[in-house]
Order: sequence, then C-alpha cells, then structure tokens
Amino acid sequence: MPKIRMLLAYDGTSFRGWATQRGPALRTVQGELTAHLSRVLLEPVKLAVAGRTDAGVHALGQVMSFSTASSVTPAQLQRALNSVMSPELVVHRASYAPETFDARFSATAREYRYAVRTAQVADVFTGRFEWHRPKALAIGPMRRAAQSLLGEHDFATFCRHPGTGKSTVRDLQRLTIARHGEVVVLRFKANAFLHQMVRALVGTLVMVGEGKFQPEDVGRMLAARSRIGTPNVAPACGLTLVRVEYPAGPSFDARSAQPVP
Amino acid sequence: MPKIRMLLAYDGTSFRGWATQRGPALRTVQGELTAHLSRVLLEPVKLAVAGRTDAGVHALGQVMSFSTASSVTPAQLQRALNSVMSPELVVHRASYAPETFDARFSATAREYRYAVRTAQVADVFTGRFEWHRPKALAIGPMRRAAQSLLGEHDFATFCRHPGTGKSTVRDLQRLTIARHGEVVVLRFKANAFLHQMVRALVGTLVMVGEGKFQPEDVGRMLAARSRIGTPNVAPACGLTLVRVEYPAGPSFDARSAQPVP
Repeated sequence: MPKIRMLLAYDGTSFRGWATQRGPALRTVQGELTAHLSRVLLEPVKLAVAGRTDAGVHALGQVMSFSTASSVTPAQLQRALNSVMSPELVVHRASYAPETFDARFSATAREYRYAVRTAQVADVFTGRFEWHRPKALAIGPMRRAAQSLLGEHDFATFCRHPGTGKSTVRDLQRLTIARHGEVVVLRFKANAFLHQMVRALVGTLVMVGEGKFQPEDVGRMLAARSRIGTPNVAPACGLTLVRVEYPAGPSFDARSAQPVP
Repeated sequence: MPKIRMLLAYDGTSFRGWATQRGPALRTVQGELTAHLSRVLLEPVKLAVAGRTDAGVHALGQVMSFSTASSVTPAQLQRALNSVMSPELVVHRASYAPETFDARFSATAREYRYAVRTAQVADVFTGRFEWHRPKALAIGPMRRAAQSLLGEHDFATFCRHPGTGKSTVRDLQRLTIARHGEVVVLRFKANAFLHQMVRALVGTLVMVGEGKFQPEDVGRMLAARSRIGTPNVAPACGLTLVRVEYPAGPSFDARSAQPVP
C-alpha cells in the first residue's frame, strides 16, 4: 500500500494535544486529521507521528505518516485538508514515502524551541507561543547548567510518565540558549524526548537563570534520576516542535516551512 | 480631575471591536477595560479612544484616556489591569496627561498596517493577524493606484457608514506597500480614517494587484464619491492600528511598544 507523509504546523492552544483521547470528545490534532483523512480517503486511517505533543504545545515542523489503499495523490490530500481545516492546523507539504517509512520510528532526531518573554508586559501578537515570566534571566548560569545536560544520560529526573519498564536514556545533542530582545529562546535537539522532558528542563534552567538554583545543582538533579527535586515544569504554551530529522533519502525536514516567529 | 492616558495592545480576534454595544452582552475592548477600571477606581469611568476599531481588528499602539477623582497612580492602574486581564489585551504604558488631553480629539494622525499572506498555505503562528489570500499580487500596479489616493480627498467611496451630515474628507498622508517574503504589507497614515476605510482601500488595491482593476480605475472610484463601485472590503483579521500621533509635549506614541510581528 502506498505510504504518505505530511509536514504539519499547528497552533496547539485550542487542541488537547496530538493524541486522540478516550472519554469525552476532546479536540486533538490526531483526531481532527484522522476524521478529515478518513472522509476523503473513504477508509479508516491510522497515523504515525514524530512527536506526540501535549495539550497546548505547538508544531512548526511536525511529521506524520500513514498507509492508504486510495489513489488520491498527496497533493490532492493536502489541498483537501487545508480547505476544510481551520487555519490553526495546516499541511505544509505532502509526498509519497517508502513503504518502510514511519514518521515515528524512522525519525533520528527532534528539535524543540521554547520561548520565555521576560518583559513586564505580555506581547499580544506572539503571546500564544511564549511563556510570559516578567523576571530577569541570567543567561550565563543557564548556559553553564546546560553543559551538564548534553550527551547521553538517563533523564528520569525530567520525565513525567516514563512508562513501566521503558528506558529513560536519551541523547541530548544540542541545547542553545539565546536572548532576542526581551525573549529568551532555548533550543533542544535529541534523538528523542521523554514525556514533558523539554518543559521540565526549561523550568529548571529558568530557576537557574533567576538564581534559585546554582548551575551545578542541575547535574546533581540529573544524576539523582528521580523527579522529586524538579517540580518546575514550564507551561505548554512556550513550546514548539520545530523540526524532525530522518536519515538519507529525499530530504523531508522543515526547510520549506515558515520561519519561526 | 487628573487625566490618565494609556497605550494599549490587543489581539482583536475574540473581541466584538472597541465600542461597547447595546443588546446582548458582547465582549468588547472598551467594555472589558471599563469594567476593570471602574472596579479598581471605585467610580464610573468614561473612556476616550484614538481609534474605534471594528470587530476582529487588532491594535499595537491604541491610545485611550479618561478622567478620575481617584488617587490611584497610572503605574498602579497598569499593574492592576495587566494582572486581571487576559493576555489578549494589555496596557503597555500609563501616565498622567494634561486635563485638556483627549485620546480621540487630541490625536493628529493614525497609522494602520494591513498584512496579506499570498503563500499557498496559511501560517499558523501569524495567521490571526493576516488575510490569507493565496494568489499572486503585483506590487507595481498597486503602488501606482496608491498614488491617486494620497492627499486630501473625499473618501466617501471607501466608507461604510459616514454618518448623516458628517464630512468624508480625510488627508491620507502616507500609503506604502511592501513585500516581506510571502506577506504583502500595506501601511496607511492619515489625520483620521472613515468607517472601514482602510479595509475598503485594501480590498480595492488587492483587486488591482490581481489584475481585476487597472491602477487608473482607483482614481475614478475615488472621484465617484459613491460606494457602489467598491464592494471589496478586506477582512478585519489583517488590520492592526499601529500608532497614534499627538502634537508636541512629552511624546506618547508607540515607540515603547513591541515591534509589529
């Protein structure tokens, strides 16, 4: 069966995350896409996704894939979806993929961006995509703390729901912290992330930036492999999945997507 | 009585415009500000505003003013409002003003910005502040058409509700059209604007950019002083009031506000 992959962007504010949920009918990205695709393809569709974003988390370069017996082309599907979906959720690209491609298991790395606005007053134009925290942040100590997080570690300290028996080892390949005017932007790249890992790391690094933790504390928290010491999970609104990487073959990353605002 | 002025920004998406409306309780910017201010000042408050924005129109540098017998300082009021209002509506600055100051009648010029995204796919991050119209726009003809609009004219053609006996003459001091990637930005500056004037001008100029009108048609429409020829009012979502100008004295413009995204 043909395999199709799509590059998605969404404003997560009004979604209860990616994953379809049991119980009351909540609006989810997966639920909305599945409903529209099934209607166009006239068959049930099962989606694989690179990053199962939580409620309120945004995506600029999310990747999903699915198999279909239909002969509807990716371009037709993209147009059909974009014409019926609200502008909070759009398909930026759609193409055929090798049958072995799986948006989740084929991915080699994910990149997330977290934005903290430190100005006294929120910005009404970008506020949906930022954590408004009007306090000074010292970037230097945050960067020193970040050093101890880089590389392959057991990140159990920074994971909410590891899942029984599952590994909590991840390879944090890059962590940059930069100030753009009154916004501090943290960018994370790893082979994969644990549940709420980026937000727990951001919450902890922000405490370092505010002088409540020392940079050295962060390495100790990591080594403790226990969540007890870090109740500081940053809010979902500041987080955006910006890019997913796949191995060789026709490139399928976020390069054609819009620049991050 | 002390006079206070405030610099405001709001995402107009979920407001039924600036002005409090009779009938069913609709959410308006004026209604929300009046309610919160009256509660803090313990007295009724009557607001003057520089630009009575329509439903769905945004503001980055809106200015309002009011008199109060209270001794609560502008800084205290700003903090109080920002702590209770949703982040869609913020006070960027607050200060005392001369007793003769009136946000509406003292204003000497208003500037609006209109953004049209011509890309095939909407941008989920900036889409609330843009008109998504995925068609090519020829900037050259639009700029030529704009020339015929500059200066003092009777703009009745581009006004929805002039009001009986009211003048429809306005002085359009500046109109620039620029392309930023896949977004075309039109900026308008005038002493004042008529009801839906900017959106009617944008709708007409976009028709020129798409080749449906010739640049020369626009001057003829203007001279006709009749709305019949221009049913093309651009949607509210692309429009933002960016700045209001006042005569000499301590500057009170939008310079301290956030840059337009």
